[in-house]
Amino acid sequence: MGTRKLTLGLDYGTNSVRTVLVDVANGEELATSIHEFETGEAGIILDPADHNLARQKPSDYLKGVQVTVKEVVAEAKNADKDFDTSQIIGIGIDTTGSTPLPVDKNGTPLSMLGEFKDNPNAQAWLWKDHTGHAEAAEITELAKKEHPEYLAKCGGTYSSEWFFSKILHCLRVDPKVFDAAYTWIEHADYMPAVLTGTTKPQTIKRCRCAAGHKAMFNNDWGGYPAKDFLAKLDPKLGQLRDTLSDNTYAIDQRAGDLTKDWAAKLGLKAGIPVAMGAFDAHLGGVGSGISTGKLVKIIGTSTCDMAVWPADKELADIPGICGIVDGSILPGFWGLEAGQSAVGDIFNWFVNYIQPGGSANGSHEALTEKAARLKPGQSGLLALDWNNGNRTILVDQRLTGLLLGQTLHTTPEEIYHALIEATAFGALTIINRFEEYGVKISEVINCGGITEKNPLLMQIYADVLGREMKIARSPQSCAVGSAIAGAVVAGKKAGGYDNFADAQAAMCGVKERTYKPNPESNKVYQQLYSLYKQLHDAFGLESFSGKMANVMKQLLDVKDKANR
Amino acid sequence: MGTRKLTLGLDYGTNSVRTVLVDVANGEELATSIHEFETGEAGIILDPADHNLARQKPSDYLKGVQVTVKEVVAEAKNADKDFDTSQIIGIGIDTTGSTPLPVDKNGTPLSMLGEFKDNPNAQAWLWKDHTGHAEAAEITELAKKEHPEYLAKCGGTYSSEWFFSKILHCLRVDPKVFDAAYTWIEHADYMPAVLTGTTKPQTIKRCRCAAGHKAMFNNDWGGYPAKDFLAKLDPKLGQLRDTLSDNTYAIDQRAGDLTKDWAAKLGLKAGIPVAMGAFDAHLGGVGSGISTGKLVKIIGTSTCDMAVWPADKELADIPGICGIVDGSILPGFWGLEAGQSAVGDIFNWFVNYIQPGGSANGSHEALTEKAARLKPGQSGLLALDWNNGNRTILVDQRLTGLLLGQTLHTTPEEIYHALIEATAFGALTIINRFEEYGVKISEVINCGGITEKNPLLMQIYADVLGREMKIARSPQSCAVGSAIAGAVVAGKKAGGYDNFADAQAAMCGVKERTYKPNPESNKVYQQLYSLYKQLHDAFGLESFSGKMANVMKQLLDVKDKANR
Repeated sequence: MGTRKLTLGLDYGTNSVRTVLVDVANGEELATSIHEFETGEAGIILDPADHNLARQKPSDYLKGVQVTVKEVVAEAKNADKDFDTSQIIGIGIDTTGSTPLPVDKNGTPLSMLGEFKDNPNAQAWLWKDHTGHAEAAEITELAKKEHPEYLAKCGGTYSSEWFFSKILHCLRVDPKVFDAAYTWIEHADYMPAVLTGTTKPQTIKRCRCAAGHKAMFNNDWGGYPAKDFLAKLDPKLGQLRDTLSDNTYAIDQRAGDLTKDWAAKLGLKAGIPVAMGAFDAHLGGVGSGISTGKLVKIIGTSTCDMAVWPADKELADIPGICGIVDGSILPGFWGLEAGQSAVGDIFNWFVNYIQPGGSANGSHEALTEKAARLKPGQSGLLALDWNNGNRTILVDQRLTGLLLGQTLHTTPEEIYHALIEATAFGALTIINRFEEYGVKISEVINCGGITEKNPLLMQIYADVLGREMKIARSPQSCAVGSAIAGAVVAGKKAGGYDNFADAQAAMCGVKERTYKPNPESNKVYQQLYSLYKQLHDAFGLESFSGKMANVMKQLLDVKDKANR
Repeated sequence: MGTRKLTLGLDYGTNSVRTVLVDVANGEELATSIHEFETGEAGIILDPADHNLARQKPSDYLKGVQVTVKEVVAEAKNADKDFDTSQIIGIGIDTTGSTPLPVDKNGTPLSMLGEFKDNPNAQAWLWKDHTGHAEAAEITELAKKEHPEYLAKCGGTYSSEWFFSKILHCLRVDPKVFDAAYTWIEHADYMPAVLTGTTKPQTIKRCRCAAGHKAMFNNDWGGYPAKDFLAKLDPKLGQLRDTLSDNTYAIDQRAGDLTKDWAAKLGLKAGIPVAMGAFDAHLGGVGSGISTGKLVKIIGTSTCDMAVWPADKELADIPGICGIVDGSILPGFWGLEAGQSAVGDIFNWFVNYIQPGGSANGSHEALTEKAARLKPGQSGLLALDWNNGNRTILVDQRLTGLLLGQTLHTTPEEIYHALIEATAFGALTIINRFEEYGVKISEVINCGGITEKNPLLMQIYADVLGREMKIARSPQSCAVGSAIAGAVVAGKKAGGYDNFADAQAAMCGVKERTYKPNPESNKVYQQLYSLYKQLHDAFGLESFSGKMANVMKQLLDVKDKANR
């Protein structure tokens, strides 16, 4: 046991941080600790007057790493008397994103300075903050006109959730905060920088993942967007461009080594290499064993669907795929990110808002049990999975749900079944889009709570996709992915690995139970999918000859007006 | 009080018969009696093995008239010592239809003969019996080929609910019954014939209403369909044609006078004139005050929408209007019948099948109360009212419901509101179709329980239709319509009326409370209606360029196959 080598994986989610201690030899998880963020509601600072606002306190992030690392170390010591912190050879970190925060010349978050302590604009702007929606539209419009290439890699529309929308919005609504900030950094960059003492804006390394997917970074045009482009949005945004380095780094690069100071705070040895950060979903892909041909689906309230493709092979721009970034998931590969805006959220809506079936029969469990008795096609129902818009492949938030085929005898479980099918059809549409552009998907690995809890959903997915559904071995695959990054930056010499392929081969796996497609069900679903696709194109594509695309938009216009 | 003149209105519904005693001077209802039919389930003989089957025992009809007439006479005597049966100057009768029954040479229903007593095929085939669906398709196909004019007046499709579909089906499945029948007569013809002793097939008068709407009767082609046409369906059906007279009669004609025998059974004076029968909805139109320009809507689980048009004025075939028959509602007028296949049934489906809102919030009352707080357009939802197919104007049972615009926050009351709106849009589509073909609708009179119980629905209808919604004064307007027919066949000399205009002016009315359209709501609904119409045409019309018409049909094909 003296030769055992371990790494720490830190996974910053929306409401909490999770830290796992992993054996690099086999991926075994020795200890886990979770810490809920303390500020605001479930760790999020909200504004009752503006439901678009969602911020977090950077100090919560620092407390989280201290609490959880100390806990896993204590747990490991308790469980195994041979454990020693010198066995920990690397640290990896993932966070949500785009979650940028303003920092001063020393790299100190403005929120840690007295003046701005309680100013929400000086905190971290959480990924789901949508206050910058007007600025997002402005950026999209200008890019369409002047630099369409900027948008080609991010699905054609710049989102309100992303880096520059948030910064530009801050500039507009709180210039004092903007002026006090030397620059803005992503949460994913901040954490490794803190642990390695490299927060100074002049020395900080920014990760490829956040820059490429959320800030239009691409080596083809020299990194971040051109200064004059940003200056047209606002001269001060142009000046900010000077603080953004032309280099970004993938997760095989080390951010630095654990400082003495932080080693003491965490109860670890100083000098442990810390990997560059990345987004949670992407390291979830790594932790689930992503590689060429293997699609990883993280299924929760929404989904993130990830694929990689060798960087030295040709790859077209794939319309509607939100992000295609060199090295964003794995170094040496294009990282492709797609997703569905709502999956579990649609089932939750039906159960929590519609509350069907009287009092006793409307739970997920009761509906699933009854729905499981239905054969494909038996209900005569067909739904579109757009209750929260469509991220991939239509990239359109102003789309809404549709349910069709109701009779006077349609039951709640039939609707529940149809909603699951709709999300499966949405999933197939993403895979088909990948394959149409040459990214062949030969294997699908799923992770997320719903994949372990709902066999009916997994079987419907297998039947609709016509593919075996596998489930990642670890339910905390994001944290495992971070631990893998820690093992790679440690390197083989130190007992880790020199590349991700080797690390994943040793540290990842899938569960024994998989879901195989039933050929007969698949045949029925092929028919239903062609009808789904017809509705999808009719209501989703402006170019569709049937011209139904106006219906949902005009309804939303009427709704907006009525609610004014 | 000695000069008071009264008439009896008999209203045979699906489960019971209702008799009212009405003052011809002002339409006041002096007494009412209801008798539930005794055979089968709620008066209907069902077959657990064939949900299409629905029959009734003719003897139940005879018991019903005896019980109810005696009861209203007793009630009137109790309430008013001056009442005398000699004040009753006429009788009118309405029934469901098409509800044909086989009779022998003497006009005796086969079911009253020992041999066939318990044979369901020898009973009255209730309007909602669908056992003849294959025969209906056969008749439609042959008529399309050889006599398209037969279908032009009945919406383009011959229904399984109608006269010849039922008779031909009996011929196919139970030739013994068919062979034993001399002819088949409608319930609406049978009742007046019984009371006036004219049941013999050689003497019986058949009503224009049933013949024209359900048996392709039209003077343009010499009455009922040609013998050779029927013979092509089956030679025996051709022979039956010889038993169908070339004359039919409107409700201003008397079937005959009450026989001594039946007068004794009912406790009435012999010799009272009895009007020709007609269908319940049509006499409901009469009882609600129908006349040129006045649309009468009977709103229940489904609707019947009726209009009349002077028979001497030109009137085109109106596509999708199920029946256009000279004299079927009022003598001297074209009777136009349209309808929605489900209205109240859609709300019942949502409440009883979906059971939304947990245990306490899913009743009609609770949903209505919350829905009443919503502004038009506020929910962003739009629905099609096709859960039970579409009768007018698409004449297509193989259409299904659609709900569009759901988000992750859509509530049950929003859906309930959208379902009411959808039925209002369906109602507007019918009115628009009438008007497109020159039948101007200047007034809308509603009747049916829902019109008195649900002010929200009535206001939405006013706002969507952009017209004042009036409600017929009497909730039993079918029976009142029959009483009006009784007053007209009595004639002015006897204290009644010589025409329907005079009788309706005296005996009909509307309630004081009406619903006026809110101009702002109407403006929003005009926008929503244009979207409804877009969905309606896209999914309902084969000719629509967007070609969505296949979606619901193919889904039903898949469903049928899955359920096999």
